[in-house]
Amino acid sequence: MKAFGYESVKLAPCYLQSKQELNRKVTINSVYDRFYDTGRIGAFDFDYKEGDGEDKRPHFFWDSDVAKWMEGAAYIMKHSNEPALEEKVDALVEKIKQHQGDDGYFNIYFTVVEPNARFTNRDKHELYCAGHLMEAAVAYASVSGKTDFLDCMEKYADYIYKIFIEEKSAAFLTPGHEEIELALIRMYRYTGKPKYLEMAKYFLDTRGAKDEQLADEQFQTHLPVREQTEALGHSVRAMYLYTAMAMLAKETDDEALKVACNALWNDVTTKKMYVTGGIGSSYIGEAFTTPYDLANDQAYTETCAGIGLVFFAKAMSELEADAKYADVIERVLYNGVLSGMSLDGKSFFYENPLEINLSEHFESRYGKRKFPITQRVECFSCSCCPPNLNRLLPSLGNYIYSLDGDVLYVNQFVASSLSENGIEASIDTAYPLNGKVRISAAGVDKLAVRIPFWCESFSINKPYVMKNGYAIVDADGETTIDFEIIPKMIWADPRVIRDAGRVCIMRGPVVYCAESVDSGENLHRLSISPDFNCTVDESEEFGLPTLEITAFEKAPYNGLLYSSKAPVKSEINIKLIPYNSFANRGESDMLVWFTED
Amino acid sequence: MKAFGYESVKLAPCYLQSKQELNRKVTINSVYDRFYDTGRIGAFDFDYKEGDGEDKRPHFFWDSDVAKWMEGAAYIMKHSNEPALEEKVDALVEKIKQHQGDDGYFNIYFTVVEPNARFTNRDKHELYCAGHLMEAAVAYASVSGKTDFLDCMEKYADYIYKIFIEEKSAAFLTPGHEEIELALIRMYRYTGKPKYLEMAKYFLDTRGAKDEQLADEQFQTHLPVREQTEALGHSVRAMYLYTAMAMLAKETDDEALKVACNALWNDVTTKKMYVTGGIGSSYIGEAFTTPYDLANDQAYTETCAGIGLVFFAKAMSELEADAKYADVIERVLYNGVLSGMSLDGKSFFYENPLEINLSEHFESRYGKRKFPITQRVECFSCSCCPPNLNRLLPSLGNYIYSLDGDVLYVNQFVASSLSENGIEASIDTAYPLNGKVRISAAGVDKLAVRIPFWCESFSINKPYVMKNGYAIVDADGETTIDFEIIPKMIWADPRVIRDAGRVCIMRGPVVYCAESVDSGENLHRLSISPDFNCTVDESEEFGLPTLEITAFEKAPYNGLLYSSKAPVKSEINIKLIPYNSFANRGESDMLVWFTED
Repeated sequence: MKAFGYESVKLAPCYLQSKQELNRKVTINSVYDRFYDTGRIGAFDFDYKEGDGEDKRPHFFWDSDVAKWMEGAAYIMKHSNEPALEEKVDALVEKIKQHQGDDGYFNIYFTVVEPNARFTNRDKHELYCAGHLMEAAVAYASVSGKTDFLDCMEKYADYIYKIFIEEKSAAFLTPGHEEIELALIRMYRYTGKPKYLEMAKYFLDTRGAKDEQLADEQFQTHLPVREQTEALGHSVRAMYLYTAMAMLAKETDDEALKVACNALWNDVTTKKMYVTGGIGSSYIGEAFTTPYDLANDQAYTETCAGIGLVFFAKAMSELEADAKYADVIERVLYNGVLSGMSLDGKSFFYENPLEINLSEHFESRYGKRKFPITQRVECFSCSCCPPNLNRLLPSLGNYIYSLDGDVLYVNQFVASSLSENGIEASIDTAYPLNGKVRISAAGVDKLAVRIPFWCESFSINKPYVMKNGYAIVDADGETTIDFEIIPKMIWADPRVIRDAGRVCIMRGPVVYCAESVDSGENLHRLSISPDFNCTVDESEEFGLPTLEITAFEKAPYNGLLYSSKAPVKSEINIKLIPYNSFANRGESDMLVWFTED
Repeated sequence: MKAFGYESVKLAPCYLQSKQELNRKVTINSVYDRFYDTGRIGAFDFDYKEGDGEDKRPHFFWDSDVAKWMEGAAYIMKHSNEPALEEKVDALVEKIKQHQGDDGYFNIYFTVVEPNARFTNRDKHELYCAGHLMEAAVAYASVSGKTDFLDCMEKYADYIYKIFIEEKSAAFLTPGHEEIELALIRMYRYTGKPKYLEMAKYFLDTRGAKDEQLADEQFQTHLPVREQTEALGHSVRAMYLYTAMAMLAKETDDEALKVACNALWNDVTTKKMYVTGGIGSSYIGEAFTTPYDLANDQAYTETCAGIGLVFFAKAMSELEADAKYADVIERVLYNGVLSGMSLDGKSFFYENPLEINLSEHFESRYGKRKFPITQRVECFSCSCCPPNLNRLLPSLGNYIYSLDGDVLYVNQFVASSLSENGIEASIDTAYPLNGKVRISAAGVDKLAVRIPFWCESFSINKPYVMKNGYAIVDADGETTIDFEIIPKMIWADPRVIRDAGRVCIMRGPVVYCAESVDSGENLHRLSISPDFNCTVDESEEFGLPTLEITAFEKAPYNGLLYSSKAPVKSEINIKLIPYNSFANRGESDMLVWFTED
């Protein structure tokens, strides 16, 4: 299975394209400005000196923040003429060239802050930064044709090869934060040089092996990767690792690796994923915890982890044609990833809770309860998520089409056109506003159209056979599909303690929530019955419909905390908005999982 | 309203008397032994020297731990010949006499550890320790007739008067942890000396007043006491304060204080109390938080706070004849207080959660989630709760009868006899095993029998009129009442977020729970319908009946986390045990509030 890349796929106006455009027009610039303000851009001048003060000192992960931004900028340039953006990237590339060591080494922190500590501390993101720079370099070369950035990163990769594989002179064997593994495979895929695949394989095979010093679930070094079956530890690290594992399995046809990837996939998506596709439930270590441990109010579910799940799902989908991978991409993209960005494109959530009860945000002289922040901000001290959105949104084209022999797979229903190697295709749709999708395809025999996980009724204008979640039809002539998109009540597996007795509402792939700005304080007084009525309001206040549904409201007791008489209920209408748009109208309680009536 | 004290009331065999006997035979000795092991008893030798090591250094609250134990031992001696116990108390009294300063000062920590810091730090429990010693001294004098301990404490009180009121030479005005206020009123009531009432009034009137240095909700110094309307801050501190306020209001007929007490009572019992009577929901500061913030799994609900609520309720009941006070005493006593002690009488909970989900007790190298401990222990480093039980249980006689003119109030249904000043009464009952209560009373005209908060149907063998929750009958001849005790479903006020969509089961005053040792893991898969059936098993495994009730069990999905199909339900029978007996059979999940079906 070969996925078509963003280079060959251009989005047309639709909901996701509006987010892509928002990123192009606003977010990419806003993130650059914040990175400039905070010294991240200036750090590429390498002019920090001892004694300059802590606020001027580059953090050891700043290279990666800017690299992800550069990668995003590169993608944007592919389908849009952006001289201002190009100038910024070129200036950064110039500085990278200027400050790269003669040996090929490039890292701001370990050059200007701890110059004698190069490759001595696995927990200081040195190879992680290298990986993100490599990804950016590949993207930039691919888009611009200019190879100087990639040349730098090849030189750096060669140096890493020498230190880690030839000399084994680094103080650690594998990175504390995975990323370089998948970046090296991208380098391999772009340059065709087997050395980079060998390096990726080395870092993966060494991870958790006997001579690895630190056996730690948090960093996924507790077991050799082929023996890992449970998603454990830091969720972003895990996603980048599993992505690299799946990519390597594809390149090397490694069955043991595929088995491990499948086990990890199942563990993540059937035991440790929120209904929004968010993963990594605990702020303690930003980590996966135990199966079905999915607290809503304290959900960590880092935006980067959701993006990492998109990467993992895509890598898995290239191993096996199964709609479940694109299903997960759709779930997390429309919900737990887009919730990471404000509607104006300028502010971000690092954490994406599924419930906010402001009344519980108790603070005293002894401390405060740990809850995610309730309003998005423009920049974090650890600001990994904003540039991750910067690079995800312009590369959405990566997730729409793929090819297996003479079958063109349509994985995501995004208005777009594809043109590559004689294959021409297009999707015309307002999805997920409605479920009507028209697909035309030339240069292939068959079309495999994913039937989304949420869809229970659909029609296609051609005979079809179902295979692994895809409806296979002849490619000849326009294919029109109509997925029935209606608001539906959703239950969680009864093992999910925090969703016990609760239900949520989805419409198509979109999870809905209530906010107290619409529905008043204490959203828990509301309950929804399985036979709720719903009116869909297509005014697109949030770019997507809002819902007005019937619910029950329980009246408070009068001066009584507990009673053998059930609270009095009355039927009311409440407004639900797309979960991904919560917290755009000031401080508010928010609820996804309602009491089932 | 005059409450009869434990001196005049002797319990007869019944459920609460079995706990009183357990304390007499086991707990009082076990706590002494642990206090001996940990150096708390030895500390009264005052032989700690600088350089003796941190493990030998007396903690600044140790005096109070032992004082509460002495108070409990004294109560036990009233109705039982206990030479071994008496010897221990006398030995401690000897040491107190021996080491009390000539000026009257007595405090171990500020004599042997920080001898130059006397009355310099309001947060080091100096007056708190003094208060507990005073309470113990009053109890001991009252029981034994020996006045030497009380003489010491009067001398100490006089010294405190000099320092705080005459000279105003202490570095603070009021104690950081309330206790001495109520103790001084007990001293006043026992000795009749107005000075002690004046002192109590001084500490209460100064609290939160303009010249108080530290305005802090945590210590209830944020406002003058008569302006306090919300229960805030450390819950044990709050209870001891409110108790003293209500006691002072009674002694001085202070209307403004009564108004404040009523407001605080309402805030605690209608907004901040668990169904078990537990209070102080947050471990952060061991504190009250916001109204209706009553998390079950993270419930702090310190055993001492429950005991403090008993004290507050009793003091309020002496201001006003209203059954609501005895209702709260009954609720917290049978549930959130007795849960603090193991069935064998040797181990204790400091925190009393209403829910345990062991699967959520996630721990990583970065820390673990904050949940209460799941098994009782014999001693804590801060072991205030065990000796608080030591003194509460032998003084249960304080809570049963009270007198208003010629009306004898029966507040608690505990098999017992009362004899004081020509009033003879007795209660014969197996309550709460069943609701049959026989009362005889001589020397009074009327009998006021509390109709418990949980009771919706009862019969009395005499004509009666209801007044403030009491049924008033002629005292002549035996009064027999039959309260209908049946298992009932209970709802919380819909503003209690964490109980939304949930119900619990009570039988009479007893809250029930399920444990996974009976019902399997993930108790949240279970739901209970309002028309549940119940069989009462009177085998008294826990000293009280267990229940077998019909419930619904939701089957897990197969490899799916979320679905638009509701989980399949089947009806099963589950065993419920008294909440106060949870965690007596090894590690177990536990649930009070079930999903309502």
